[in-house]
Formats: sequence, structure tokens, C-alpha cells
Amino acid sequence: DIARAVAAYNSASAIAETSHQQTWLGKKVLITAGPTFEDLDPVRFIGNRSSGQMGFAIAAAAAQKGAEVTLIAGPVNLDTPTGVTRINVRSAMQMFSQVQAHYASVDIMIGAAAVADYRLAQPSSHKIKKQPNQDELTLTLIKNPDIIAWVAQQVDKPYVVGFAAETQQLADYARQKRLQKGLDMICANQVGDGQGFEVDENALLVMTATDEVALPKQAKYSLAVALLAQLRKQLDITKG
Amino acid sequence: DIARAVAAYNSASAIAETSHQQTWLGKKVLITAGPTFEDLDPVRFIGNRSSGQMGFAIAAAAAQKGAEVTLIAGPVNLDTPTGVTRINVRSAMQMFSQVQAHYASVDIMIGAAAVADYRLAQPSSHKIKKQPNQDELTLTLIKNPDIIAWVAQQVDKPYVVGFAAETQQLADYARQKRLQKGLDMICANQVGDGQGFEVDENALLVMTATDEVALPKQAKYSLAVALLAQLRKQLDITKG
Repeated sequence: DIARAVAAYNSASAIAETSHQQTWLGKKVLITAGPTFEDLDPVRFIGNRSSGQMGFAIAAAAAQKGAEVTLIAGPVNLDTPTGVTRINVRSAMQMFSQVQAHYASVDIMIGAAAVADYRLAQPSSHKIKKQPNQDELTLTLIKNPDIIAWVAQQVDKPYVVGFAAETQQLADYARQKRLQKGLDMICANQVGDGQGFEVDENALLVMTATDEVALPKQAKYSLAVALLAQLRKQLDITKG
Repeated sequence: DIARAVAAYNSASAIAETSHQQTWLGKKVLITAGPTFEDLDPVRFIGNRSSGQMGFAIAAAAAQKGAEVTLIAGPVNLDTPTGVTRINVRSAMQMFSQVQAHYASVDIMIGAAAVADYRLAQPSSHKIKKQPNQDELTLTLIKNPDIIAWVAQQVDKPYVVGFAAETQQLADYARQKRLQKGLDMICANQVGDGQGFEVDENALLVMTATDEVALPKQAKYSLAVALLAQLRKQLDITKG
């Protein structure tokens, strides 16, 4: 779990000295994490494989460094990191509402959640019964709001960091996504082949308008610390 | 968790005496539990809210009473009960394969899993990209095999127990389902309104061709013990 990862990381002597420095004191960070589940009826839903670990690791690392962290979490089995304010949501629409309520009061928004792209227009309030004579079921889904792109379009927007989980053409898709959504930074990660979702380690390609930095495969908490260092550097450039 | 529930149950003095009796020695029981997840692509899936707790509780209770228990479990966050052989699966098709491999060598099959009724015919091997100009996504799903009904149709079938989770017309739907699927017993439970899925307590309506018994709302392990008592009575009638 993340508490153990934080402790293990901080006890690693080579890096302990810097990791305890409160370099994020006074910074307000909003983080989304985990999947969203889109209900089809009271029993069934469309989900995705995000474990929430990456977003929770970033929240833990930022709080550890003194940031004031609000974490909007989809349905995950993770404990709230020490010092983090957590808000639980289930669907993309619920996550969007919470982001709308909080984005304007933070310095940085990090969208690590794997938000469902589509939802059922009208979830059934009763369990959809299987029809014996019906061999196919057609679901018509409508598009969810693009939460991170919406934040990036606001005049009072914070510094906006998005994620791109891709199974192919990682750098190309991510570069394109950063521009399309108007993000300040995008963190791209390869999924599939034992990387990304449902695993403890991850690697990230961190891209801004001026920089592309590859953070090698490592434990998610250690990766979160490395990402925050990159982010801090960019913020200093932006503000400087 | 279930280990704690077993311990708590056994320490309750009023029932401790009978709960330790190995009344299921020599019986082989096959149990399915949890949801199945049907992948749409490497990231997305259709799931359902089954926590697996009921099936795991029955497995724990049956093993505690001396039965030889094989548990085929969908994706859940639960520890394997003491003395139970567990086989993990993800999709309905994987669960079906395991049931086909095991049903003929058991005395009783209990289908407590919430098997997905439908799956995508051809899951994508790459993440389905959201199309900026596409406001709707249509998914065409095909029917999954009805695992419990398939077992009930086999000439070498064990005693077959199914579950029916319903949001409305509980008894009617369950009675009908038992007959349609050719089950020996069906256990009906109301879902929604804080009952059934994702909660620790449950109530069951246990129906056979001759009996309908209501087991009142209680902790799932205690309910599992009550269900096994009903089941044992039916088996004695059937064999006798």
C-alpha cells in the first residue's frame, strides 16, 4: 500500500534528505485518480482497469512535501494518504462536478483518473432482464465531458497536467492529446504487457511545450516523486 | 473479512456446538463466486457489483463443516477461505471452461457468481480511441452461455443450486428462473436499497420444487450456514 511505499521510500538513505524537504509548502494541488464506473443498471456498469495507484502516489508525495492536496477518487480499494483531503465519486459526471467546484482555488490540477469516455444516456433504474429470444444486446453510449480539457479552457485555469494511457504509438498519441486538450503537461504511459494498470511499477514520458523527459520504470511512489520534481521545474519556468 | 466472520460465528456460544460438526465430510462442492468482467478492449470492461462475499462465505462454511470445496472466483478482493481450493477467472467464458472441467466430479454445484449475461463478440486488442467527431458509441453484445443452466442439463449433473439477484418481483422472477433453468434449488435475494451487493448482510428466499424458506437478513457467513442447513435437508430428501 501507499503508506508503506512512502515509508520505504523515505527510509532509502540516498534520497531521504531531499524527500523530507517541504518544497511544496503553500501550493494547492487538485488530483483526480482511479477509474470511473458508468452504471448501465443497478447491477451492471462499464469500468476500466485503473487501480488509482498512480494518482494516490502523487497525492501522497505532494502532501509529504507540504502541498495542500485535494484528491477526487473514483471507486478504488486504496487508503487515503496522510494529510490528503479525499472526495469519493463513482461516475464521470460526479467527478466533473467536484472538479468544477475545486479547480479555481488550486495552483495545479493533475488529472490521473481514467475517466470513462462514454456513458449510457439513461441508466435503467431496474436490472435489465435477459430476454430468452434476444441473442444480441445493443448499448448506445453518449460521450462524457472531457474533464481535463474543460479545466484547460477556463480563463482562471491552474497549471494543468493530464495523463495518456496508450497501448500503441505512445509518444505520438500523447503529444497530440496535449495539444488538442490544451494541457500544460502530459504524462504518457504504456499500458498492456504488464505495465500501467493493475501493476505496482510504471514508467512515464513527461511532455510539455518545451520538454520531453522519460522517467524510467520504477515503483509508483518513487515515480510520483520524480514527476513532482519535473513539475516543480516547469512551474518555476512558467512563473519565472 | 471472512476469516474474522468465521471466527466470530464460531465463538457465538449458542451455535458453536453444531457449527463445528463435520456434517459435510465426504461431500464435494463446486462454488462459483464474484462477478465476471467482460473486456471491451485492454482497458475497458463491463462489470457488475457482485463482491463475491456470499459465494466465499458459503465456501468457507462448507469447508468448515468438512466438505471438499472448489471455488471458481471472478475478479474480487477476497482472501481464499481456509481449506478451499480456489481457481481465479475473469470472464464468463473462462468461468464456463472451469465449471465444465469440474462439475462432473462433485455432489453439489452452487452458482453464486453474478455471471455477465452478455459480452463483446470481438474485444479490441488495442484501446478503442475516442473519435472527436463521434458523439455516440454503439456496442453490440452477444449472449454468454448460461453456465448454471448448462450444468443442470447434463445427464451426470450434480445437485444444482442457483442464485437470483433481483430488484423487483423477487419471488416471481426466482420461481420462474428455477424452472426455466432446471435448477434443483434457487436462492433469491433482493438487490438495491442497501441489500445484496456491496454490503455485509443479506437475506435469501430459498426455493425448491417442494419448499420455499425465507432466511432473514443476517451477516453473510451466518446466512451461508443457514443455507447449508437447508441444502443438507434437501439432499437427504433427494437421496433418501
